[in-house]
Amino acid sequence: MNCLLLNPEDLTAPGRARITGRRFQQLKTVIRAEVGKRCKVGLRDGCLGFGTICSMGPDSAELEFVCDVPPPPPSPISLIIALPRPKSFTKVLHAAVEQGVKRIWFISSFKVEKSYWNAPRLMQDAVEEEVTLALEQCCDPVSPRIEFRRAFKPFLEDEVPGLLVGTDAFLGDPAGTEPVPSKVSRPTILAIGPEGGFTDYENGKFREAGFRSVSLGARVLRSEFAAAALLGRMNPDC
Amino acid sequence: MNCLLLNPEDLTAPGRARITGRRFQQLKTVIRAEVGKRCKVGLRDGCLGFGTICSMGPDSAELEFVCDVPPPPPSPISLIIALPRPKSFTKVLHAAVEQGVKRIWFISSFKVEKSYWNAPRLMQDAVEEEVTLALEQCCDPVSPRIEFRRAFKPFLEDEVPGLLVGTDAFLGDPAGTEPVPSKVSRPTILAIGPEGGFTDYENGKFREAGFRSVSLGARVLRSEFAAAALLGRMNPDC
Repeated sequence: MNCLLLNPEDLTAPGRARITGRRFQQLKTVIRAEVGKRCKVGLRDGCLGFGTICSMGPDSAELEFVCDVPPPPPSPISLIIALPRPKSFTKVLHAAVEQGVKRIWFISSFKVEKSYWNAPRLMQDAVEEEVTLALEQCCDPVSPRIEFRRAFKPFLEDEVPGLLVGTDAFLGDPAGTEPVPSKVSRPTILAIGPEGGFTDYENGKFREAGFRSVSLGARVLRSEFAAAALLGRMNPDC
Repeated sequence: MNCLLLNPEDLTAPGRARITGRRFQQLKTVIRAEVGKRCKVGLRDGCLGFGTICSMGPDSAELEFVCDVPPPPPSPISLIIALPRPKSFTKVLHAAVEQGVKRIWFISSFKVEKSYWNAPRLMQDAVEEEVTLALEQCCDPVSPRIEFRRAFKPFLEDEVPGLLVGTDAFLGDPAGTEPVPSKVSRPTILAIGPEGGFTDYENGKFREAGFRSVSLGARVLRSEFAAAALLGRMNPDC
């Protein structure tokens, strides 16, 4: 936890908050909080700043804070990614959120096993908790929007064309012939396939929609490292 | 396993190999091998190619193979990285090996807990097994050289200057002022700090040795995603 995120329900008065639960435990064990100790804080979907511990109880800590530093700029890149197996899903979420991605669609694909959709890690509470951990890691208080689409064709045909207006679109593919662009500045959607890649039909659908196949090289990366490497290449410094 | 790596001891005759153990189990379950099935193979530290299953026993499979495709080019980037906690160590290893890094030094730092050095994951057999999994993932048969240095100062003062001859050197640091270079072509060493960063003293030692502090932005990434993102930015397409 590099930054303590404060939610509206934590606020007890202007500039004051009470922290309980996991964040309190981490304050105690990781930051070794004690009265007078300062730590980095962020107001959920607001600014960053610093807090000072005013009191420590057995189950909660009170702190005073000032948040007046704007959050880091969001990535211009949104992600469409074939739903990975559950363990990898959490990692992909971290890889993307830690690099400032604010919109992610996890989608179906022929090679996505149906059982993945029922994984407890995909439940709303579990996703929100992982997103919070990733935001705390990267010191960014601004929540991303995470969506799931279980039907490939309607998403590609009915929803994607609207998303692509005024937006560049790339499909990461080890067999792609164009290089991955460096440090994009325009709004961009990046699509990443499942282990083993999208099928020819699916690739065709992306191409029809206007996606260009790009490749970092011949090596086949695990989903989370593909996302991290492509974002590292394509993100402007943000 | 996107590529079956063949070791010298697997070869029973020129162009023939017998596979047992974990790789045999994965051939059966993941690739669903049966006689006549073709799969991508690589000769350890040699070329890539294809194999065909000739026979399947209860504990082993025999295959014929031809390997005549050169491996993907290595990354020009070598990595110096503060030893992360054991779970993260394995992930960093994957992030680097999957992007073609052929030399990694895991080093000490003030913020590296001493207990990390005794983790079973750092034993030679465990490291070799993880490296093999990463090479199988990314379809690259060429083994990297992984080294450990428990003494920060002697490494920086006595060993690094020799490594830096004819080599560019960068230190990834969220507080760095220079941008991370894109797609380097010269031999390059990239240093990455521990969670919480190198100390001022340690940063000073890197600067004295000739490293330039570079940053992808203000966000603080987990070690494995910092490695993956920096390599994604800096690697040429390889």
